[in-house]
Amino acid sequence: MNDTFVFNPIGMVRSCFSEKFGIPRQPRLAPAARATMEIFPPYDQDEAFGGLEAFSHLWLVFVFHGIPKGCWRPTVRPPRLGGNRRTGVFATRSGFRPNPIGMSAVVLEEIHRHQGRLLLELSGIDLLDRTPVLDVKPYLPYSDIIPEATGGFAAAPPRPWPSIEYTDRARQACALLESTYPGFVDLLNQVLGADPRPAYMDGHARTEFGVRLHGVNVRWTHRQDTIVVHTIEVPADPPALPEGV
Amino acid sequence: MNDTFVFNPIGMVRSCFSEKFGIPRQPRLAPAARATMEIFPPYDQDEAFGGLEAFSHLWLVFVFHGIPKGCWRPTVRPPRLGGNRRTGVFATRSGFRPNPIGMSAVVLEEIHRHQGRLLLELSGIDLLDRTPVLDVKPYLPYSDIIPEATGGFAAAPPRPWPSIEYTDRARQACALLESTYPGFVDLLNQVLGADPRPAYMDGHARTEFGVRLHGVNVRWTHRQDTIVVHTIEVPADPPALPEGV
Repeated sequence: MNDTFVFNPIGMVRSCFSEKFGIPRQPRLAPAARATMEIFPPYDQDEAFGGLEAFSHLWLVFVFHGIPKGCWRPTVRPPRLGGNRRTGVFATRSGFRPNPIGMSAVVLEEIHRHQGRLLLELSGIDLLDRTPVLDVKPYLPYSDIIPEATGGFAAAPPRPWPSIEYTDRARQACALLESTYPGFVDLLNQVLGADPRPAYMDGHARTEFGVRLHGVNVRWTHRQDTIVVHTIEVPADPPALPEGV
Repeated sequence: MNDTFVFNPIGMVRSCFSEKFGIPRQPRLAPAARATMEIFPPYDQDEAFGGLEAFSHLWLVFVFHGIPKGCWRPTVRPPRLGGNRRTGVFATRSGFRPNPIGMSAVVLEEIHRHQGRLLLELSGIDLLDRTPVLDVKPYLPYSDIIPEATGGFAAAPPRPWPSIEYTDRARQACALLESTYPGFVDLLNQVLGADPRPAYMDGHARTEFGVRLHGVNVRWTHRQDTIVVHTIEVPADPPALPEGV
């Protein structure tokens, strides 16, 4: 079968996640993770989204950003299996699939216009900044909730990390950042609490890790059950919030 | 943004639904609705599906079959709203969307090979025969079940039709068909029980309706609370089951 299908994005997500590392492995693990989806013309018609506000959650069908075409592999090593055990790519939600299409159920906060552009405000997202979106659909509880569904390597949600501490300098930086990015500390706590490290790094206490949120570099180490955030690089000229936020 | 994305199907669904009318409006409303998905080369590698059997349900990301490109409309009339009230296309799961991509959570019965081809046996499907599939993903209960999700015009599952009767001739035809298509009567009862008519037809008792299942024509009328199946055209030479079944 030689059919090919050509799709154009209906919009783009502008999110707090400047890089892949640190993005929660499923949506809604970080409720403070907010994003704005801009709808592109000619799809930015109010009536095309009429009725969507009645739903608390929606599905985004998106294209994995930054995964070049032709990079699919029959097996991958999902982080939830420790990052060192291989499983079939179709048994995972990895982006390294033949058609790098992702699905994510997120919270719909608001639909509004800003400077003429139609924007969907979202939270609990797990999408990289600039992710192209192919489709938006309502989450239909009666159909999408399958109480009898079982299985797999990710049966339970990950346990949040018990304790996160900040050095004095990191705390000062946070205070500064809150004025530019309200909710920054909540977001950081949720992202670190979800433990973005691959599980096989669990024993490497001394290793330093880093994540970029809103373009801000954050670095931390692990000390027994405690994450210690020691460096937050406040840019002299903090990057503006994504357009439209 | 002028990005375009080109996708090739990884497989095709062969299903009992020979035409759009009669297809349940969401998956799993007709558990007897079975299908076989054939995986195309080069994706038909056992290892690419390794681990998927651990999941009871999977998502199919598919292309709505038979909806020509460029047919999207800002508003549609979903059957659940009676078929005569318009709502935004993005507030529905209608196929008349800018990118005619669908998502369906179905039951995974079995993964096996037949004459060298890799096949996924599915049930509770709502897909037209020959639907091209772009992706297969595990249904992840911990992430995909959102207990707090609310909303929309389809909050409750449709009520199954209370009573279905068969004329003697129809009953005889069913008996014949069961030998070719085991489970045909269950499937027919579930399809008719879900009431494929648009809701605005509810009062039109005399109207005759028809549906094609496995290529077999079935016709019925409504009499108060009873569906009366009066005609089942058993083909002289019943079409073979879809290849690979």
